[in-house]
Amino acid sequence: MGRRAETGSTVKVLFEPYGLRAYANPNETILDAAIRVGVGIRSECGGTQICGKCKVQVRDQRGLTPATLKECKLLNEKIQSSFRLACSARFLQDADPITVVIPSESVVRKRQFSEIVSERKIKLEPAASKVRVEVTQPSISDRRSDSERLLAGIKRIHGHTKIELDYNVIAGLPETLRQSEAVTSVLWDKERVISVEAGDTRATMYGLAIDVGTSRITCSLLNLTNGVRVADRSVENPQIAYGEDILTRVTYSQAGGDNGKQLQRTIIAGINDLTEKVCKEADVDPYNVYEAVIVGNTVMHHLTLGIDTKYLARSPFTPAIRESMSIRGAEIGLSINPNAIAHFLPIIDAFVGADAVGDILYSNLHRRGAPALLLDIGTNTEVILRDREGLTCCSCASGPAFEGVHIEHGMKAVEGALESVTIRRGGFKVGYRVLGVTKPVGLCGSAIIDVIAELFKEGLIDRFGKFNSEVETPRLKKINGVKKFIIVNAGESGTGRDITVSERDINEVMLAKAAIYTGCSTLMRRRGVARGELSRILIAGGFGKNLNRQNVRLIGLIPDVPSSKISFIGNAAHAGAEATLKSRKALHLADRIAREVEYIELAASKEFSGEFAAALMLPHKNLELFDTLKNYINK
Amino acid sequence: MGRRAETGSTVKVLFEPYGLRAYANPNETILDAAIRVGVGIRSECGGTQICGKCKVQVRDQRGLTPATLKECKLLNEKIQSSFRLACSARFLQDADPITVVIPSESVVRKRQFSEIVSERKIKLEPAASKVRVEVTQPSISDRRSDSERLLAGIKRIHGHTKIELDYNVIAGLPETLRQSEAVTSVLWDKERVISVEAGDTRATMYGLAIDVGTSRITCSLLNLTNGVRVADRSVENPQIAYGEDILTRVTYSQAGGDNGKQLQRTIIAGINDLTEKVCKEADVDPYNVYEAVIVGNTVMHHLTLGIDTKYLARSPFTPAIRESMSIRGAEIGLSINPNAIAHFLPIIDAFVGADAVGDILYSNLHRRGAPALLLDIGTNTEVILRDREGLTCCSCASGPAFEGVHIEHGMKAVEGALESVTIRRGGFKVGYRVLGVTKPVGLCGSAIIDVIAELFKEGLIDRFGKFNSEVETPRLKKINGVKKFIIVNAGESGTGRDITVSERDINEVMLAKAAIYTGCSTLMRRRGVARGELSRILIAGGFGKNLNRQNVRLIGLIPDVPSSKISFIGNAAHAGAEATLKSRKALHLADRIAREVEYIELAASKEFSGEFAAALMLPHKNLELFDTLKNYINK
Ligand code: FES
Ligand code: FES
Repeated sequence: MGRRAETGSTVKVLFEPYGLRAYANPNETILDAAIRVGVGIRSECGGTQICGKCKVQVRDQRGLTPATLKECKLLNEKIQSSFRLACSARFLQDADPITVVIPSESVVRKRQFSEIVSERKIKLEPAASKVRVEVTQPSISDRRSDSERLLAGIKRIHGHTKIELDYNVIAGLPETLRQSEAVTSVLWDKERVISVEAGDTRATMYGLAIDVGTSRITCSLLNLTNGVRVADRSVENPQIAYGEDILTRVTYSQAGGDNGKQLQRTIIAGINDLTEKVCKEADVDPYNVYEAVIVGNTVMHHLTLGIDTKYLARSPFTPAIRESMSIRGAEIGLSINPNAIAHFLPIIDAFVGADAVGDILYSNLHRRGAPALLLDIGTNTEVILRDREGLTCCSCASGPAFEGVHIEHGMKAVEGALESVTIRRGGFKVGYRVLGVTKPVGLCGSAIIDVIAELFKEGLIDRFGKFNSEVETPRLKKINGVKKFIIVNAGESGTGRDITVSERDINEVMLAKAAIYTGCSTLMRRRGVARGELSRILIAGGFGKNLNRQNVRLIGLIPDVPSSKISFIGNAAHAGAEATLKSRKALHLADRIAREVEYIELAASKEFSGEFAAALMLPHKNLELFDTLKNYINK
Repeated sequence: MGRRAETGSTVKVLFEPYGLRAYANPNETILDAAIRVGVGIRSECGGTQICGKCKVQVRDQRGLTPATLKECKLLNEKIQSSFRLACSARFLQDADPITVVIPSESVVRKRQFSEIVSERKIKLEPAASKVRVEVTQPSISDRRSDSERLLAGIKRIHGHTKIELDYNVIAGLPETLRQSEAVTSVLWDKERVISVEAGDTRATMYGLAIDVGTSRITCSLLNLTNGVRVADRSVENPQIAYGEDILTRVTYSQAGGDNGKQLQRTIIAGINDLTEKVCKEADVDPYNVYEAVIVGNTVMHHLTLGIDTKYLARSPFTPAIRESMSIRGAEIGLSINPNAIAHFLPIIDAFVGADAVGDILYSNLHRRGAPALLLDIGTNTEVILRDREGLTCCSCASGPAFEGVHIEHGMKAVEGALESVTIRRGGFKVGYRVLGVTKPVGLCGSAIIDVIAELFKEGLIDRFGKFNSEVETPRLKKINGVKKFIIVNAGESGTGRDITVSERDINEVMLAKAAIYTGCSTLMRRRGVARGELSRILIAGGFGKNLNRQNVRLIGLIPDVPSSKISFIGNAAHAGAEATLKSRKALHLADRIAREVEYIELAASKEFSGEFAAALMLPHKNLELFDTLKNYINK
């Protein structure tokens, strides 16, 4: 009573299964209230009543606004069992206490595995270096300033003629120089002093590699004296609160005066949070982090830098800047050494960002060699082709199907996701592997590919992705008039519901794989590279090592090459950022690469729609392109 | 009653003669309460019970803490007529309403006259320049970024190969480029783009010249398209709250964790306040101010930049940096264009700062020519000697006597100050001129010099500055046992009290003039320059044009040269800042000058004390040095 009286008309809410009691404001959505009090509810569309992932159960709905038409459509039968969309239902003023149950499949789950690939050998030569400097003490006869004596000391070692001192270094210089006989200077690119520290601190020098992905931020901390990664972490991109989809965020950033800044602050807060965690984990003082290399697609690059993104989203899709940028990290609010340098790798085009430059750097694709393809699969898939003359790239609007979006039981590769699925020949017995020690709750990208490939091999679906009505199996059921193949039945699943795949789900994947294949084939046609000439196909992105090479070929995601030529390189963009941290040559190389890669706009190609349509079959309309797989087709 | 109840134990105060009613907090000093409510009380020592300038009258003192011993000493007889030091007397809890009368001589007065000297011809070539750039619109076939197209546009005009874009410019670039066909870019030093504006804004380009003096900040706004000064203002340095004297401030800045930053913020707030005023006066948008040139002595230079000053105040008196510094004004919080450059002129040594560099720049002293002396008279007086080979300088601890401090009726050259005094031969009739249309309240520096010179010519004081007991005049009175010469009697003065000069006052001036003369003579001896060789003596500083050339010679402030060789150049340091604003050549020249000037430490010279003692007479112990004045001496 007392509480109600004090806070006016707030509504008491109990979030289950957490048993968390909280107060909601009248007219606030369940989603907003949940986020506010730290309860994670999936909201892939950013609360715009599109994705349907934010389902919650509320038995007594008298304290909520009634369901909207949109809601009813997305929930269909579930509305009867008192489900609501958390992003739509709002609390009514003076409502009685309300209990909100968050079902298992609506819970935001933690990723299980670090996605950073293992290290390649790179000569350690970071842009930042530490030198121990003996500085002459001042005297009545030596009228030189502190900065002059320091620079003279550095020159005695380096013999340089031109070294500059950062403004922020000077403020504390008098005290530092008098604290010890010798000091340690941090030099940037051997020409700027970015920090001066009392004593010999040469053993502590760290750098951060950061990949700002649309849905995830990964961060690793490297010891720059030996190149060893000492900690890494990743986190859901907190901008997801403003829309899962990148375009939604661009739109949001344009909607109000401060929105762009707000999105920037959100990313920076996410980065700072990760920074704090990796530093704590490795027992490193953030003050000793002197460099951060940041990669990300073009929109994330612009948003992180606080650059207007409006024109990235409208024709002719022009970025504000493509060159790499080196700024003081403090200028964008990074919580590391106040003079640390934040280096943003260059971007290639509006749809091929710094992440692709990182991919190329890490995979050495820029080195002359036999033709090779690199694919970085995500909501937008970047495809880069190396031929004998250089690099060509394009961006494919593959959509988020491989991240589980628009797939009824789709989910990201997090705890509880099926990561691989096999269907035993003949009997339709299904085998699967789950991420984490838990019951399965949905399908991540690699499992969806497996399911389609296996169904196709078994003749359960035809080349158009339609169920073959001649095959009979108890696993194929009509649910509410829609045919679905049951992968995990309700009894075994973590949600208590069947985990299924429908023709609609398969179609989503077909659209995605066709887009990606068309990207590959267009680049190859343009550059006159034949399938047989490809020495390698490198696949980067969230899939990780769980992808089945044969199944990837069987659904026609990539050109048909022997499985031995296919490599999964994980989060190569992040690894590229790490490479740049280790070597300032890589840093300069990145700019050269970005300038040299030729971007091809798929939509501008007149053959595009024809090629895309042909790729909308399993594995492709033209079976000659997939001749090595003929044993699996049409049986 | 109600009010008392609400605010607890605050004390009602009536400040007279303003009739301002206010509330003071218990245990607050009268001074603090007055400052808080906007009543100006002189407080040259920063409220440390040293200067005695903060005298106020309180008839009923029951609500105040009793007078301290220090207070009694400073107030002596005045304590009887219920005077108190505002910085010492504190309000008692639950006191009855108190009336505080601020006597005329304790009122902070506005300076009457702008101290910025008139302009010299300097070729207009500021570091910032504006160019109108036609930028190609982006298209599907032109994949260049906004920044690439902008830079290409600039290069079409300038033909430069290397132009950089400031990070902060990029954020808004997409929108700006799409607002108009052509944009205007602000280039810094023809190599960095610091601002991009829609349309043609070439007509609006401004810069600030700022002189941060120990006691005063002066600021002028220049139109950089034609070099015209469009507004100027000055203000008491708000740091005075932390001590009139520079050493007090250095001590304060070291006393606590944040004190240094606080002093920096105080100066910056003062500068921003002036900026706002000059911009408003000239109807200029601060966004169109792209450059600020800042001069000041070394301590002010360091404090403004937030640099540790501790070691400026202890032997061997080493500055943190001597080179000029160009930083983004925003880094120190200047409220002008966010990318505007703040340029700090270089300093020469701990005791000869950027103001001296400004003096030299403005006066062209660095140009080869006949020997010449430049004196910038202040609490520290900088003396610079030009001989045939170069420049030598020293700093003289002249003290603030010429600013009225330590002089019983001394004051700054503000409204109400006597600016010149003549004593009619024989009759001791006194003539004077007052600054402003008001009754006189005290003596500023030029008047003090006049009084001493005139008394000396009349034989009323001897060569040691002692009253000649043989002369009788009603103007020479013993007040409380101390002999004083009455310049203005109580009836004519604005304070209702006699304005007098005592032997003690004269002695203060003798110490000051001896310090300055010794600086001049030491430099001349060191460089082998004879008095007869001096082609000019330039006097800069607060004195202005009211100084009497003959009297200056007669008290022995400077070497005895014909009056025609003496020039008053006003606030030359500020004028030097303006010159730098107008010409980037001057900006580079400043660095060269600072490197070339040789600093000489007076205290290190073994002849120093002897020379100083000899200069402690009127005009000097060695009358041969002042032979042109022999008619006035010993008569
Ligand atoms: S429908 Fe509610 S968050 Fe997407
Ligand atoms: S004695 Fe009070 S301010 Fe100086």
